[in-house]
Amino acid sequence: MKFCSECGHPVVMQVPDGDNRPRFVCEHCQTIHYQNPVIVAGCLPAWEDQVLLCRRAIEPRYGLWTLPAGFMENEETVEQAANRESVEEANASVDVDKLELYTMISLPHVNQVYIMYRAQLLDLDFSPGIESLEVALFREKDIPWNQLAFHTINFTLENYFRDRKENLFPIHTHTIIGRNGKSTDNK
Amino acid sequence: MKFCSECGHPVVMQVPDGDNRPRFVCEHCQTIHYQNPVIVAGCLPAWEDQVLLCRRAIEPRYGLWTLPAGFMENEETVEQAANRESVEEANASVDVDKLELYTMISLPHVNQVYIMYRAQLLDLDFSPGIESLEVALFREKDIPWNQLAFHTINFTLENYFRDRKENLFPIHTHTIIGRNGKSTDNK
Repeated sequence: MKFCSECGHPVVMQVPDGDNRPRFVCEHCQTIHYQNPVIVAGCLPAWEDQVLLCRRAIEPRYGLWTLPAGFMENEETVEQAANRESVEEANASVDVDKLELYTMISLPHVNQVYIMYRAQLLDLDFSPGIESLEVALFREKDIPWNQLAFHTINFTLENYFRDRKENLFPIHTHTIIGRNGKSTDNK
Repeated sequence: MKFCSECGHPVVMQVPDGDNRPRFVCEHCQTIHYQNPVIVAGCLPAWEDQVLLCRRAIEPRYGLWTLPAGFMENEETVEQAANRESVEEANASVDVDKLELYTMISLPHVNQVYIMYRAQLLDLDFSPGIESLEVALFREKDIPWNQLAFHTINFTLENYFRDRKENLFPIHTHTIIGRNGKSTDNK
């Protein structure tokens, strides 16, 4: 950020009165420009013993596999965002009344929080959206573990197939720090 | 938003190529300015059968009671944000290794997601932070139900005292729409 989005004058980085951390501040119109983490919302769409994955047609991680997920938009709920991503990336229909919160992963190095839901596919009528090269169902043994796009996706899938053996799906809160994926359970 | 924060030229509202919703776009430097929901992270700090509340010394809802909660900052985890708010608003020490995710509430009309944790106070050495007029412990019967600052706080406290009777604390995902607090369980 270089200019004030309210008045167009240059901003400076300083600690505002009564605050305790530096912010972009406009000395002309006094606007304080806060910057906060974003939510990445998504689904793990299941069909019997298989999970739907999308191969990315966009950067970053072009060509690698992911669960349908993306930035939550204004004016929607987390569940609506997760469902929308399934439609946009895979033209997939999931049962929106049966979304189950599953993993919540903080990524403080990139100012993101992933919020992933378990979901049930309603039918097999899916196909690649504009951001996907292909979309397919995978059994555990066929998951392309070394071709997954993000550590958050490995974490969510690994827990899913582990929990599936017990048919118990507790919510996993977690932190992943840095590009090497250093990982910490939050309790 | 009126001006581009990268180059200072005026922005226009338009649907970028390959997108499906209007964004603030700079036609001079081509920057697309995305706007996304923010996370409000907080704690329900418990001590035996009592809960810690803070009376707000700031707007909005000056003088009303709330749980310690506030906007999550960049470069922190959700749990660190929840803990930080307990320190800033109440100088309260909670056991950060035993935070338990408890309510996640979407507020699409204000582009916020509340993420609240159950927490255990480590001691009774708390006091008002700069954003609080007073800080106190309340038993269920003494909670100032009609003097709570936000619907999210009512929702979290009501569920807590209900769940406490069974000593079972499932995670509650929820949506609150509009200032009248129209409320929907998300499953």
